[in-house]
Amino acid sequence: MSNTLTGIAASAGIAIAKAFVHEEPDFTVKQKEASNKEKEVERLTEALAQSTKELEEIKQKALKELGEDKAEIFSAHLLVLSDPELIDSVKGKINDDGVTAEYALNEVADMFITMFENMDNAYMQERAADIRDVSRRVLGHLMGIQVVSLAAIAEDTVIIAHDLTPSDTAQLNPAVIKGFATDIGGRTSHSAIMSRSLEIPAVVGTKQATKTIANGDMIIVDGIDGDVLINPSEEELATYKQKQQQFAAQKAEWAKLVNEKTVTKDGVHVELAANIGTPQDLDGVLANGAEGIGLYRTEFLYMGRTELPSEEEQFEAYKEVVERMEGKPVVIRTLDIGGDKELPYLDLPEEMNPFLGFRAIRLCLEKQDMFRDQLRALLRASAYGNLKIMFPMIATIEELREAKEILADEKEKLKAEGVTVSEELEVGIMVEIPSTAVASPQFAKEVDFFSIGTNDLIQYTMAADRMNERVSYLYQPYHPAVLRLIDMVIKAAHAEGKWVGMCGEMAGDEIAIPLLLGLGLDEFSMSATSVLPARSQLSKLSKEELSAFAQSALLESTSEAVENLVKKHYQ
Amino acid sequence: MSNTLTGIAASAGIAIAKAFVHEEPDFTVKQKEASNKEKEVERLTEALAQSTKELEEIKQKALKELGEDKAEIFSAHLLVLSDPELIDSVKGKINDDGVTAEYALNEVADMFITMFENMDNAYMQERAADIRDVSRRVLGHLMGIQVVSLAAIAEDTVIIAHDLTPSDTAQLNPAVIKGFATDIGGRTSHSAIMSRSLEIPAVVGTKQATKTIANGDMIIVDGIDGDVLINPSEEELATYKQKQQQFAAQKAEWAKLVNEKTVTKDGVHVELAANIGTPQDLDGVLANGAEGIGLYRTEFLYMGRTELPSEEEQFEAYKEVVERMEGKPVVIRTLDIGGDKELPYLDLPEEMNPFLGFRAIRLCLEKQDMFRDQLRALLRASAYGNLKIMFPMIATIEELREAKEILADEKEKLKAEGVTVSEELEVGIMVEIPSTAVASPQFAKEVDFFSIGTNDLIQYTMAADRMNERVSYLYQPYHPAVLRLIDMVIKAAHAEGKWVGMCGEMAGDEIAIPLLLGLGLDEFSMSATSVLPARSQLSKLSKEELSAFAQSALLESTSEAVENLVKKHYQ
Repeated sequence: MSNTLTGIAASAGIAIAKAFVHEEPDFTVKQKEASNKEKEVERLTEALAQSTKELEEIKQKALKELGEDKAEIFSAHLLVLSDPELIDSVKGKINDDGVTAEYALNEVADMFITMFENMDNAYMQERAADIRDVSRRVLGHLMGIQVVSLAAIAEDTVIIAHDLTPSDTAQLNPAVIKGFATDIGGRTSHSAIMSRSLEIPAVVGTKQATKTIANGDMIIVDGIDGDVLINPSEEELATYKQKQQQFAAQKAEWAKLVNEKTVTKDGVHVELAANIGTPQDLDGVLANGAEGIGLYRTEFLYMGRTELPSEEEQFEAYKEVVERMEGKPVVIRTLDIGGDKELPYLDLPEEMNPFLGFRAIRLCLEKQDMFRDQLRALLRASAYGNLKIMFPMIATIEELREAKEILADEKEKLKAEGVTVSEELEVGIMVEIPSTAVASPQFAKEVDFFSIGTNDLIQYTMAADRMNERVSYLYQPYHPAVLRLIDMVIKAAHAEGKWVGMCGEMAGDEIAIPLLLGLGLDEFSMSATSVLPARSQLSKLSKEELSAFAQSALLESTSEAVENLVKKHYQ
Repeated sequence: MSNTLTGIAASAGIAIAKAFVHEEPDFTVKQKEASNKEKEVERLTEALAQSTKELEEIKQKALKELGEDKAEIFSAHLLVLSDPELIDSVKGKINDDGVTAEYALNEVADMFITMFENMDNAYMQERAADIRDVSRRVLGHLMGIQVVSLAAIAEDTVIIAHDLTPSDTAQLNPAVIKGFATDIGGRTSHSAIMSRSLEIPAVVGTKQATKTIANGDMIIVDGIDGDVLINPSEEELATYKQKQQQFAAQKAEWAKLVNEKTVTKDGVHVELAANIGTPQDLDGVLANGAEGIGLYRTEFLYMGRTELPSEEEQFEAYKEVVERMEGKPVVIRTLDIGGDKELPYLDLPEEMNPFLGFRAIRLCLEKQDMFRDQLRALLRASAYGNLKIMFPMIATIEELREAKEILADEKEKLKAEGVTVSEELEVGIMVEIPSTAVASPQFAKEVDFFSIGTNDLIQYTMAADRMNERVSYLYQPYHPAVLRLIDMVIKAAHAEGKWVGMCGEMAGDEIAIPLLLGLGLDEFSMSATSVLPARSQLSKLSKEELSAFAQSALLESTSEAVENLVKKHYQ
């Protein structure tokens, strides 16, 4: 039998292809002293020119095959290559210190990288990553090391890597990259999220893929069960080809549901919506037949720039989304920034525990000019479709009341200015802080809807940072306490005649769906690519039957026991 | 009328005395070049000798008036003064660079401070603080700046400071320091905790005390209501002197309760226990008539040292506490380290959100050798009194089961070795993570008792770092969600016939006590100095009457509404 690695199933599907092990070459600079300064400057100029040409080609290729979004990262890299501050520093070092071009480049790049990394905000750290990527490309040319571009891969391949960075995944062409497996990461790590968005089967967190697998090994990536088979036997190959065909047949079956409503076996309609980050994501939403947008994260409008977006710019973005959704509900979340998503122009102080810090609504209620701009843009866009406003990180009734007052104030001002504003605008909150889940009977009286944000709710409920590998085992969506909180929230909302959605990863999870339906969840919002499988799954489930079942799950002692219970009865 | 500042009442009582504004002098070194190297080395040697003499005197004074614990900080400072690495570096700089003694000292001290601070763990940062304190003392001598030692204050004084550091509070002599007021801090900041332990009236977080108050101003510190009056009128002075006498009378009244049991107006006994950090704290516990130890934090045994404490050393400490408590219950919490309390010899990785990280039981279950040593010490000590073991940061039943298995294993081993171990040893858990509060019905079946750790439970429930000033308004003990969680935990425990204690700050809080009694809390564990006021308060409350009242508080919408409700009926 073949050697099999077990990891975390990150993106469903079966990939069968030869392995390409994506390894970092050794860029240790060995020669320091140079005899001829002019020659070193010449070598540098040449390496820069070669790198520019290479990046231009990759960028064109990415533009053609992967779209504008993904190509942008290479524009950023080209900017680094032509940055006079960086180039002049390297030349200065060659001339002043009499060192080789590679030594000088390495020194200067390290200085910039350290400087940016120490700025300790996500934007600057991305700049550090850009400089690292680019300097390695140039070093490659100087040192005669072939830097393999993932974008250059032309035949069917399974990528094996320690981890894949944003710059790596931007280069993946789904036409030839059949799947990937990584050593580290979890279901919500960058590489996992990208694999689902690109619809490439993937297994992450195998711990030892790069150590065990060699270039050219035949690999099966089973993104359904989280297995990676190395050099499978004929028999195994046959089995997995069959599993691959079954999955393809299932996908074809799912595709038929694209224009259907989501109805359970016992005839109950639940709403299947999608989460989006930018208006560009709408193509995927419409292609997958989502019945609405359950979460439009507005952070991206504020990121990767040097000043706040204007009210007008925001209005255009929100209007585009509600118009393209043609009357279907669009829940837009107000700015959820802070913590890991700091903005350079807001100059937020460093915090010891950013996930427990000054972020989202806490920040917006203080920076009211910024908040009011966003609310005005949302109110104006509300006239163009079915827009709903949602406040993130609400922990107290006072915060909710203050946010609603500011909204009402801006609404009055707009109406006084003669601007049309929807009069049916619903206002809800994210339930992602335990206090709000526990006090949901009080909150339910003062909102139009709840949307349970499980990514944060789970991490706070378990007191475990979901980005921290050492406590990631405590990120347990099926923990009876998490289910009990969800149950409380749904009961509290229904008692007041309000609806409850969920917009965390859990809403699209196969094990969670029967439980959530049984607990009475009204709206499930997930990655667009999960909508059709979820619709198919829900059509086979009876809400009535699951109601008692879900209540019994609340009495289990452990996450594992709940999972086994669901698997036993509903898989 | 006088100018009044409002802050946070940190320690009850009224202080009336002249202000001493504790300001940092300007230590900017102005002269760099020195003409005579030998003279500079001589000046340095003399300043070091003067500082040593001064510190020896302060240390002796602290030893006599404040006890061994507080004097220790000055031993650490004396060690810095005689550190050859530091002194030789300064002398080397004077001789090599031809700079003044103060310039050289400042440069070398800054280098060490930066180095230690960047090590980013609490222990090393304390070392950085020591070097800063000591180098300023020496700089003071070199530059002719009088560094006022708080220990040198000889007449009745109210200290006004931006904040008080551990090194500052170690110098406070309660005989003359009548009270203090600070610009920053909250009820759980270091200065606030110290003020209660020293029984000095204090108001923290006034925002502007140092800006508004001048040396010699007459000050009233009202540590009951959180007010600071500057140059009060005759009338105000009279009013506050009366309030001071009332408080003194109340304290005398409380003192009579020292040997009494804690019994409510309707005859129900509840247990009033104290929290301790070291066996030395027992004097205060016994003097204040606590009925047990509700929380013995074992962290201090592991801190400020270079290697793990041995089983024997721990055994001696635990045995001393249980023996001195003479059969009264002593709940000992196993190691709760990580987060802000890192240990240099454990080499823990830096975390983005240490409060949501790898700490307490999570760490102990991985570092089993360390954990087993502690459990063996506890098991051996259990033969000498009424010892109970408590596990911190339990989030899942699996963690509890694993910890209990390891304990059972060590118990068997000890018994096989012929060591006596208590057979009545109770094993409980801290309920400080929301998941555990919510799933308390499941946990109650597998523990002997719960102790609710409100400091952490509140911060996780509200998703607000209690050490972060910007979100400290969200640290709300009376939030209806916090009360609901406490209610759930108590009901779940009682349904299984188990008892519930509380060992967070909330247990000694005057507003919280009526609510907690009404919810059915069995044991209240607090600072030793809060025990008698709490006993007095409880003797005037009827548990039966408060039961319905507490349930009605759960239905309020906000923390403020709950607080007003209690004040209206029970103050």
